[in-house]
Amino acid sequence: MEKNKKNNKSLTVQDGISQPSSISNESINRFKQVKKKSLTADEYVSAITSGDITILSKAITIIESSLAEHQDLAKDIISACLKYSGKSLRIGITGVPGVGKSTFIEAIGKYVTSVEKKLAVLAVDPSSDISKGSILGDKTRMEELSIDTFAYIRPSPSGGNLGGVARKTRESVILCEAAGFDVIFIETVGVGQSEIAVHSMVDFFLLLMLAGAGDELQGIKRGIMEMADFIVINKADGDNLLKTNSAKVQYENALHLFPAKESGWIPKVQTCSAINKVDIDKVWTVINEFFNLTESNDYYRKNRLNQSLYWMRQTINEELTSNFYSNEIIKAKITELERSVMNNQLSSIEAAKILTNLYFKK
Amino acid sequence: MEKNKKNNKSLTVQDGISQPSSISNESINRFKQVKKKSLTADEYVSAITSGDITILSKAITIIESSLAEHQDLAKDIISACLKYSGKSLRIGITGVPGVGKSTFIEAIGKYVTSVEKKLAVLAVDPSSDISKGSILGDKTRMEELSIDTFAYIRPSPSGGNLGGVARKTRESVILCEAAGFDVIFIETVGVGQSEIAVHSMVDFFLLLMLAGAGDELQGIKRGIMEMADFIVINKADGDNLLKTNSAKVQYENALHLFPAKESGWIPKVQTCSAINKVDIDKVWTVINEFFNLTESNDYYRKNRLNQSLYWMRQTINEELTSNFYSNEIIKAKITELERSVMNNQLSSIEAAKILTNLYFKK
Repeated sequence: MEKNKKNNKSLTVQDGISQPSSISNESINRFKQVKKKSLTADEYVSAITSGDITILSKAITIIESSLAEHQDLAKDIISACLKYSGKSLRIGITGVPGVGKSTFIEAIGKYVTSVEKKLAVLAVDPSSDISKGSILGDKTRMEELSIDTFAYIRPSPSGGNLGGVARKTRESVILCEAAGFDVIFIETVGVGQSEIAVHSMVDFFLLLMLAGAGDELQGIKRGIMEMADFIVINKADGDNLLKTNSAKVQYENALHLFPAKESGWIPKVQTCSAINKVDIDKVWTVINEFFNLTESNDYYRKNRLNQSLYWMRQTINEELTSNFYSNEIIKAKITELERSVMNNQLSSIEAAKILTNLYFKK
Repeated sequence: MEKNKKNNKSLTVQDGISQPSSISNESINRFKQVKKKSLTADEYVSAITSGDITILSKAITIIESSLAEHQDLAKDIISACLKYSGKSLRIGITGVPGVGKSTFIEAIGKYVTSVEKKLAVLAVDPSSDISKGSILGDKTRMEELSIDTFAYIRPSPSGGNLGGVARKTRESVILCEAAGFDVIFIETVGVGQSEIAVHSMVDFFLLLMLAGAGDELQGIKRGIMEMADFIVINKADGDNLLKTNSAKVQYENALHLFPAKESGWIPKVQTCSAINKVDIDKVWTVINEFFNLTESNDYYRKNRLNQSLYWMRQTINEELTSNFYSNEIIKAKITELERSVMNNQLSSIEAAKILTNLYFKK
């Protein structure tokens, strides 16, 4: 890829990875215009595809908005951005609080931008409105990355259920790709259902861990380890070094016992010290190996198609259940039926049938 | 538990496990009546709760039937049986074909009936209508168990999707419990989504494996190992003995790396030889340890309540999506929209919204 930190005029989409561009004076001028009047969808799209970060941010805010007029505008922006999207490396990063996730994202993020790639860091954290443990809520924890002109950091959409938060992040990915970002990190906190949602919107899933296998793992929810393409053991420094090396062997043995991945990829384990920036290049090498493999065996493309259909069905499902559970007749009846089920007076299946009959006969 | 192989008159439900009874002359007479006229729901329930296996079988056939009149009758039978149900140990058993599952179920099953417990063996295998690899399709593979008066073997309901097959098996469990079965095995073939369905209807999940970790595991779907409460390594005999012992250590180490289970149970690994009936008693001891633990910490009860609510929501979900996808307007439109999504002309979320808008506006 050619170096084009200076080229901030327009986005060139090529066969492979789209070319990055950084924040320009042009975008600052455009921002001043925005303050005066609202932009049309076309104006948004043209600014986004020319790499205008300020307008990108504003467009993501529109995606996150619940106002009806914003939702219509968001739909038009996303639709128009779609044809410029799809060319990034989407990487999920998860790990429980305390594992050093901000420091790790800063270290690997700086490495990514140092090799001339444009990086966006997004998040899925449905708990972020309560602002407990949301790393990206506090950009100051990534001091270097937050002032890097090749990087864009965006906190998790706040409020709403997981489905809504995940959907908004997935739509933001499309916009970031249209804006020319080559690499997109999507982080989660590793303690809930969010990882499944993130797993279904990324190409590669990285699990950040600490040495001392067993105890620290208690915080990681079941099922997450099996989704991992890559386990990175952080804090391989000082007194911890011996412990991380033995943890590496343990995890390698454990991963070996898992069934083969559909991608043909054999999950790897790597130690690193994010704080000392040691072995960060090795982490990036493994990620590249994955993308080389899955581009050559076509898994990369197939997986994305499957993910798109998955998200379509998932969204349909959410719309159907949300309509059902917000129905007044259902709301008036469901608690009583749940109680009967729990008291063994009614089978769960019969209770479900009573409710769906009420719903469809209305 | 008192021995009552001779007592085939009636079912006595006690605080703990219900008392078993075996097939009686009475039931044969009742079967002759059945040939003449249809039974009422009350007659079914009274026969089932007195331990009549022939009538139990007939009632399960009615559950599996898709005739509207049968479905109404099934609903009444299940409702009435509910208050007699819930007292068994529900054990999921999975393992890929070739692992010796029939031989294992026969060995552990004979052990269970030898300690005076009444055992029902059910199955969830949505592929069973194609009769490939469905072990229970061929009762002759469990020669001893199939003629044991303390055992009842029932093949997987055939036809239909996983949701339907699983629902029917779950309802059959209720009837088997009402008929006084103390232990219920629900087997699956370990290669699909069925394990998740079975996991959500049992108390304990046993994964049957072979030694030589890695290769054989290829057939086991991802995620199944993490659901296991117990890994049993079969064919610990002859030349295989050394290999199974080293596999045991490997699996123990691997399981140790998983997050703690909500049940407080630490998953165990045990080797056995089903064909030589070696260490089958040890398998049963572990299962008993689990039930003692989860009864004392109340997980057994709480888990069943959660499972009931899960099945209620699951059934609602199935009804909603089945209504949606069988809608004529949706059927006429969905293929075109899916194609647009796959060609990146339409976002998956927008496609979903177009369809749900069409659906709700009809």
